[in-house]
Amino acid sequence: MNKKQVKADPKYFNASDIDNMEQRVRANFINSLSGFKSGNLIGTRSPSSKDGTRGVDNLAIVSSVFHIGAHPPLLGMIMRPHTVPRDTLQNIKDTGEYTINHICASIVEKAHWASARFDPQVSEFEEIGLTPQTTDQVKAPYVLESRIKLGMQVQDIQLLAINQTELVIGQVVEVIVEPYWVSEDGYVDIEAAGSVAISSLDSYHLSHRIARLGYAKTNEKPFIMPPKET
Amino acid sequence: MNKKQVKADPKYFNASDIDNMEQRVRANFINSLSGFKSGNLIGTRSPSSKDGTRGVDNLAIVSSVFHIGAHPPLLGMIMRPHTVPRDTLQNIKDTGEYTINHICASIVEKAHWASARFDPQVSEFEEIGLTPQTTDQVKAPYVLESRIKLGMQVQDIQLLAINQTELVIGQVVEVIVEPYWVSEDGYVDIEAAGSVAISSLDSYHLSHRIARLGYAKTNEKPFIMPPKET
Repeated sequence: MNKKQVKADPKYFNASDIDNMEQRVRANFINSLSGFKSGNLIGTRSPSSKDGTRGVDNLAIVSSVFHIGAHPPLLGMIMRPHTVPRDTLQNIKDTGEYTINHICASIVEKAHWASARFDPQVSEFEEIGLTPQTTDQVKAPYVLESRIKLGMQVQDIQLLAINQTELVIGQVVEVIVEPYWVSEDGYVDIEAAGSVAISSLDSYHLSHRIARLGYAKTNEKPFIMPPKET
Repeated sequence: MNKKQVKADPKYFNASDIDNMEQRVRANFINSLSGFKSGNLIGTRSPSSKDGTRGVDNLAIVSSVFHIGAHPPLLGMIMRPHTVPRDTLQNIKDTGEYTINHICASIVEKAHWASARFDPQVSEFEEIGLTPQTTDQVKAPYVLESRIKLGMQVQDIQLLAINQTELVIGQVVEVIVEPYWVSEDGYVDIEAAGSVAISSLDSYHLSHRIARLGYAKTNEKPFIMPPKET
């Protein structure tokens, strides 16, 4: 980042400063700027062979899962077709199903390892040492060690023509979560469950709640909600 | 959430359990499930009137900003046309510009207040007590008090037909950040800058870094990167 040392004001980066960055520097820089990201492992299974052999379980780390709507319950994620999660995207297209598994602090290193370019014929579960778990509802494998898990059915895949990424939109059809993390008002305490936040491409963070804030009204500052009764 | 007390296994929520939740409970529940979210204030300005009167500065809190690509540098955000940020979406469509301003811990309550339904003719900056800041590059107002600020030019707006939300895709054309938060490798220490993560609809969190992990290879567990030299 020597460039910034010769700029008129080192605090300002314009479009050409960004364009002139070395590729990996720009990747770290831009990936930092959106703010904290969700950290999830995406579980899929390739289709069975014609002879009935079960498909291969696949696991990919994805930091772009985001909320689209609550009713119906929809989440989106961005997939870059030419990077590691390509098996994931193909499996989703082939089977229509995937799982979203929160990365908790105890599995951060294994989860990050899932970003390595494992051969499509090997299961990341075995390679990195996590345990596949299935249910009656969803054929794609969950991560047993994850504490908040979502079974997903794909609803739509939209090409983002501007850079050829694909937006996968799925509906939540199953949620596996310990009930003591779920408040009466529906809030799930993902901090208590140990879910991590990601910054940039490779930094993992635990969280410390500042507050829950009440429904905002124009005529008064939001109030701090009392802690959950347990 | 009394329903879960009569379920066979309280740990499992299926599609109909979710569908049967009371609306606000479901909103809290589903909004929790994607994991931690970025916390940003979106600054826009409505177009000037024909008589030359300057437009109104607008501020909206958005927790759905996410990374789409680094080259070109693109970020997306989901806008629900029928909720509070509708002025924001209209201003973006009218002017093509907006700013993304990280919410840091010191402005959390003000930022949350921006979600109240202020009249389109008043500026949220004035109502909640934040300071608009402009630059030569971008006409939309930045939030002076924010520590990491992005000037954005809209590139595309895609309708997500499944629930009528709109995906706004913008290119980063300016970044304002103190250089001492930017590492040689391009990583921006958003934790040191005090940026918050959001969970569900109303919970704000500070972060505590676990580690940065090195580039993952198939044949060895990822290594923990040494702390940044300062």
